[in-house]
Amino acid sequence: QERLSGIASEVRVLVLLTGGTIGMTMEDDVLLPRPYAFASALKKQPALHDENYAHQTKLYDCFDSPDNILVLPESKEKKRVVYTILEYSPLLDSSNMTTDDWAKIAKDIKKNYEQYDGFVVLHGTDTMAYTASALSFMCENLGKTIVLTGSQVPIYTIRNDALDNLLDALLFAGQFVIPEVCLCFHHKLYRGNRVTKVDTSSFKAFSSPNLPPLANAEVDITINWENVWRANTIKKFSVQTDMNRNVGLLRIFPGITTETVKAFLQPPMEGIVLETYGAGNAPDNRLDLLQALKDATDRGVLIVNCTQCLLGCVSQSYATGKVLTDAGVIPGGDMTPEAALSKLSYVLGKRHISHEMKRKMLSENLRGEIKVAHCGAKISLRDS
Amino acid sequence: QERLSGIASEVRVLVLLTGGTIGMTMEDDVLLPRPYAFASALKKQPALHDENYAHQTKLYDCFDSPDNILVLPESKEKKRVVYTILEYSPLLDSSNMTTDDWAKIAKDIKKNYEQYDGFVVLHGTDTMAYTASALSFMCENLGKTIVLTGSQVPIYTIRNDALDNLLDALLFAGQFVIPEVCLCFHHKLYRGNRVTKVDTSSFKAFSSPNLPPLANAEVDITINWENVWRANTIKKFSVQTDMNRNVGLLRIFPGITTETVKAFLQPPMEGIVLETYGAGNAPDNRLDLLQALKDATDRGVLIVNCTQCLLGCVSQSYATGKVLTDAGVIPGGDMTPEAALSKLSYVLGKRHISHEMKRKMLSENLRGEIKVAHCGAKISLRDS
Amino acid sequence: QERLSGIASEVRVLVLLTGGTIGMTMEDDVLLPRPYAFASALKKQPALHDENYAHQTKLYDCFDSPDNILVLPESKEKKRVVYTILEYSPLLDSSNMTTDDWAKIAKDIKKNYEQYDGFVVLHGTDTMAYTASALSFMCENLGKTIVLTGSQVPIYTIRNDALDNLLDALLFAGQFVIPEVCLCFHHKLYRGNRVTKVDTSSFKAFSSPNLPPLANAEVDITINWENVWRANTIKKFSVQTDMNRNVGLLRIFPGITTETVKAFLQPPMEGIVLETYGAGNAPDNRLDLLQALKDATDRGVLIVNCTQCLLGCVSQSYATGKVLTDAGVIPGGDMTPEAALSKLSYVLGKRHISHEMKRKMLSENLRGEIKVAHCGAKISLRDS
Amino acid sequence: QERLSGIASEVRVLVLLTGGTIGMTMEDDVLLPRPYAFASALKKQPALHDENYAHQTKLYDCFDSPDNILVLPESKEKKRVVYTILEYSPLLDSSNMTTDDWAKIAKDIKKNYEQYDGFVVLHGTDTMAYTASALSFMCENLGKTIVLTGSQVPIYTIRNDALDNLLDALLFAGQFVIPEVCLCFHHKLYRGNRVTKVDTSSFKAFSSPNLPPLANAEVDITINWENVWRANTIKKFSVQTDMNRNVGLLRIFPGITTETVKAFLQPPMEGIVLETYGAGNAPDNRLDLLQALKDATDRGVLIVNCTQCLLGCVSQSYATGKVLTDAGVIPGGDMTPEAALSKLSYVLGKRHISHEMKRKMLSENLRGEIKVAHCGAKISLRDS
Repeated sequence: QERLSGIASEVRVLVLLTGGTIGMTMEDDVLLPRPYAFASALKKQPALHDENYAHQTKLYDCFDSPDNILVLPESKEKKRVVYTILEYSPLLDSSNMTTDDWAKIAKDIKKNYEQYDGFVVLHGTDTMAYTASALSFMCENLGKTIVLTGSQVPIYTIRNDALDNLLDALLFAGQFVIPEVCLCFHHKLYRGNRVTKVDTSSFKAFSSPNLPPLANAEVDITINWENVWRANTIKKFSVQTDMNRNVGLLRIFPGITTETVKAFLQPPMEGIVLETYGAGNAPDNRLDLLQALKDATDRGVLIVNCTQCLLGCVSQSYATGKVLTDAGVIPGGDMTPEAALSKLSYVLGKRHISHEMKRKMLSENLRGEIKVAHCGAKISLRDS
Repeated sequence: QERLSGIASEVRVLVLLTGGTIGMTMEDDVLLPRPYAFASALKKQPALHDENYAHQTKLYDCFDSPDNILVLPESKEKKRVVYTILEYSPLLDSSNMTTDDWAKIAKDIKKNYEQYDGFVVLHGTDTMAYTASALSFMCENLGKTIVLTGSQVPIYTIRNDALDNLLDALLFAGQFVIPEVCLCFHHKLYRGNRVTKVDTSSFKAFSSPNLPPLANAEVDITINWENVWRANTIKKFSVQTDMNRNVGLLRIFPGITTETVKAFLQPPMEGIVLETYGAGNAPDNRLDLLQALKDATDRGVLIVNCTQCLLGCVSQSYATGKVLTDAGVIPGGDMTPEAALSKLSYVLGKRHISHEMKRKMLSENLRGEIKVAHCGAKISLRDS
Repeated sequence: QERLSGIASEVRVLVLLTGGTIGMTMEDDVLLPRPYAFASALKKQPALHDENYAHQTKLYDCFDSPDNILVLPESKEKKRVVYTILEYSPLLDSSNMTTDDWAKIAKDIKKNYEQYDGFVVLHGTDTMAYTASALSFMCENLGKTIVLTGSQVPIYTIRNDALDNLLDALLFAGQFVIPEVCLCFHHKLYRGNRVTKVDTSSFKAFSSPNLPPLANAEVDITINWENVWRANTIKKFSVQTDMNRNVGLLRIFPGITTETVKAFLQPPMEGIVLETYGAGNAPDNRLDLLQALKDATDRGVLIVNCTQCLLGCVSQSYATGKVLTDAGVIPGGDMTPEAALSKLSYVLGKRHISHEMKRKMLSENLRGEIKVAHCGAKISLRDS
Repeated sequence: QERLSGIASEVRVLVLLTGGTIGMTMEDDVLLPRPYAFASALKKQPALHDENYAHQTKLYDCFDSPDNILVLPESKEKKRVVYTILEYSPLLDSSNMTTDDWAKIAKDIKKNYEQYDGFVVLHGTDTMAYTASALSFMCENLGKTIVLTGSQVPIYTIRNDALDNLLDALLFAGQFVIPEVCLCFHHKLYRGNRVTKVDTSSFKAFSSPNLPPLANAEVDITINWENVWRANTIKKFSVQTDMNRNVGLLRIFPGITTETVKAFLQPPMEGIVLETYGAGNAPDNRLDLLQALKDATDRGVLIVNCTQCLLGCVSQSYATGKVLTDAGVIPGGDMTPEAALSKLSYVLGKRHISHEMKRKMLSENLRGEIKVAHCGAKISLRDS
């Protein structure tokens, strides 16, 4: 197929529309997904599609399904982002996301990896931090930019954050090589396994408490290259879609019973994120509770210690949380619970490596999700 | 006992030293409690004790245990805060706090309620937000100021936040009638049942995400009186120490199994805070999971829906979380998980009220812990 | 002219396009104003114009210049904002704005006051805070909402803040009676005489350091009604366009010479905002400098004391800045320099009131621009 | 003189007490300096002086004026900071500071440079940012840490920030080689020529808008070494005390008259910081005003363009502020007005370098005060 001038500046982005508020419509005060409407809605937005350019350059002639092909206006960087919408059917509610859905997304990226310069995943905000974390581990030897985004208000609604978020995501994915699974929201680009949803009603819905943003999209786009993580590998990109489902999050609270802990740890559970107090503390005078944890780790359950606090980390010093370390619990450093949970799922999915190797991987930095070197206090902060 | 001039400006504060970092010492890189040393250490700090005044006014003559009596230098408000240290033995690690300890604190306040103008509770930071929430409910018809505080660094250590926090707490408790259980930290006074610990290593350890501070202690002390909650009651102060222990926190995560939920809900569990996604969402395509929740509420378990997000609230609109409402789950509005958990414990402790009344109390504002009126979105934010 | 159904929900807003980045285009890396292009550009944006509705309701039939008539999509509040673009010719660069331009804007509002429900003024960001302050004083007995806005990036540019700012401003101006001159930027509505431009390159360009926003436009629009200022008057709206130009801003700095001060204060200067240190301090050992100030106030120059600090206020206590008070300088409380400057221009424009009355007006709260009651420190903060 | 064990860990800091709120007392609601009282007041504070250690190690035997010698308790880093108070007489009010006072401070540091490991300058907050900027230029080839600090509330007052600020400053100056003139306030260490006072009544009085802090002093002290500026010189430390006084700050405002500008620029003025709008804009249609600027630069006046905005920078691109560049004005990048003013004073103090060299120095980075490389927008932001 012949194309006209200007195409030298084109880059290609694949947009996976998995679902989420961004593509919903309000009907009788309830938000509902609206299938097969997204691409055509975007085509009416001059900020998101340049129909003149598409015609002049015969863009649609090159593709089998031209309805799903769009092209942004020329960017400040003098690029043209040509993007393809791949809409999931049915559209998924992010509250219903499972490891199967993570695997589908990863496989779709793998299948299209060579044909595109970058990838955008549109996703509901509720579990976007979980999915971003999971994808960051599932994508091995990643060399292209993957950006998850979505919105608090649908693109069909007046006064929405959908247009800005999608536009920023497309520009990041198409124009910059940030070989990470990222999350883009409200003019910032974050490392995907560092974010957590912190606000239900503000456009600034996400926070990356322990790592500054990878990039800002304000009057200018500025990339903080020193924060971008690089795998230092020349291996071929692959995806691990085998994610263990027998994992869970257990938050400690005053008066938690040993029965509750035991019930939570019982088979088939294989991995637990234990959300502890402060710098990684749990009751140390509850011998039965500690024994329950030890019994679990003895039979092979992997338990990672993360803090309930938004900021900060679980100390890796000897003294803090010694009782937990003695019980076989692995210090989780400054990982978010979302990152630790999906890392467990990923590591446990590796069936052919030893238990010790799994413990080691959980302690180590795999995708920039943990600051392994001394994080924080040199001293014990027991009960700080 | 005769006292000299100036005592007209004196106010009395009782300080309950329950334990925590504030009174610990570092030994071999481990923080350990240091019994029977706190009051004498404070006496050496001119900011916290005016020995000249104590002697001149024969302060010590009036008390049985003068070692535990201290007096602040004169404040800007021209007051003298005379305070008594009541040290718990053994000192408690806040990670080990239980409902019994909450009851002891409440009883100690009740016992001394008439003799003092205000109360300071020194407590470890790890579970301070839980205890502050619990005490806010346990204290009924409170007419005096109760301030919890503590520190990230012990008062025995160079460069600590203990001195400032204790001083601010004493001045708030002694000089102002803020009839709430408050938490004072890093120059701010918060409503106790609105805070959560958010940072393991900064002096600004606490946040009150959904309510501004009650007061600031910067160059001047400024009280935001419009935020102070008043019970509008003339009933006598009392404490309810019967707190139900069969309560728990359950955080939803992608792939959580129905078995896990069932195990968590099994007897003797009587009340659960369900930490959901965003504005109160949970999987709505998991019929067995929803059935497990319904079975629990049918047999009387109280389930309150709180969001995993730091800011914002669970919508009380019909549409959002309809499946959870249908399963008998109570919307938790903008309550913190800590507040909701201790509110459950408190409400379930009322043995002589009906199940319906308990559900009603959980939905209502009892101590300023929840904004009952429409909070946030008018629309459904399912999967926002 | 007959109109079709639905018009009951219509509200009318007049948009004064005075100039500014919002309507510029980039040519050869220079931003230039683009006359007579704005309205037609907006008509291509589905977020800003609903062409279907316009046709169905025969909207254009009602107006003489239909090209400048637009209508928003239906809002969440079920309203239709019909707005008219009144484009200034030539378009103004905000750096070149003068009191004449302020007067023109005020007169245009006055002329159209009865025909519209609200007003939006599009303006360059550089001096928007000055103009917003000036208009707040010039508009007397205001009963409708006036919103200034603009953008950091032109509406013709990919990834801009122009669309969001304009949309928010239209919705505030059309749907809510906030009888103030406001400034809308980056999802917030501020009182116009409280803002200052604080950032050259972020979308969050403005700050209102001493007053919280009047409203937020996040997932929902929320008005902080307790902050909205009401004149409590039933007088008819009028505009004072006589603004005295012989006013200026003089910032104190270490080593400022008396000659400089004298030169600045020489006739025809009639009013000065003196930007002092901290809580209103200036050198008190520079008798010649203080004499120069006193000489000026003796001959009738009005000098208002504002702080160089972004936050806080000039103490009105006796002690602080006593030397300045003795020299006849008027404490400016927590006014911004922009507000104080335009207030001087406004008060000096009142030719028929006494000098004492002018001094009194400068000290008093006219439009919510100053917190008159005790602001801040009870004590002298000389050299704090 | 013989000393006992432990002295190996000692470091020496010289504290210059120039004046300021930190050493004042309140009398009849007015703050007044309190001469010859500071050192003895500190000796009563166990956090600031360890009398036992002083006696055991015969510390006082080594010095001529033992009253002014103090020693901190052992730090976490196992160091002992021994410090000497050098009190100025008379104590200076920072509002009265002049270039002479800057010179005295610089000379005192020079005189004592070899005997001490670091230096603390106690100073009023009102002009501390000006003095810090000035000292940063005056100190050439600095190899030791100089820390300015002070407080919002005197050390003699209950609930003050003086103790924490002094302690942090001593620990930074004594224990770390940060070869800069720094400013320490409210648990942060900033580059001195990057700060500005932003709040009159909060303990967080200073901000460094365009550069992150050099260090934090929270639960732990953490140095951001990548931000510390190094001169890369092996030249000997020296101080330039010849600071030109004929410099000034001129803030542009709407309607500023050419007469005002001319009067400000008239001899003996030799250097001006022009505070412009936004990214460096001024009226470009005021030919007489531009001519007045050009006339001044033609006769050798150095004019540096800084923004009125707290954050951001004056664009160095061709287009923005072209009229100012044509008038000979030098773009000031992201320098604060305080830094630009004192840099002018410093550069103009170099009598033996050419005018061109002076212009060059003003554009270049001398002490980390300016980010020379592309700062911010690639595009013109005229009237943004």
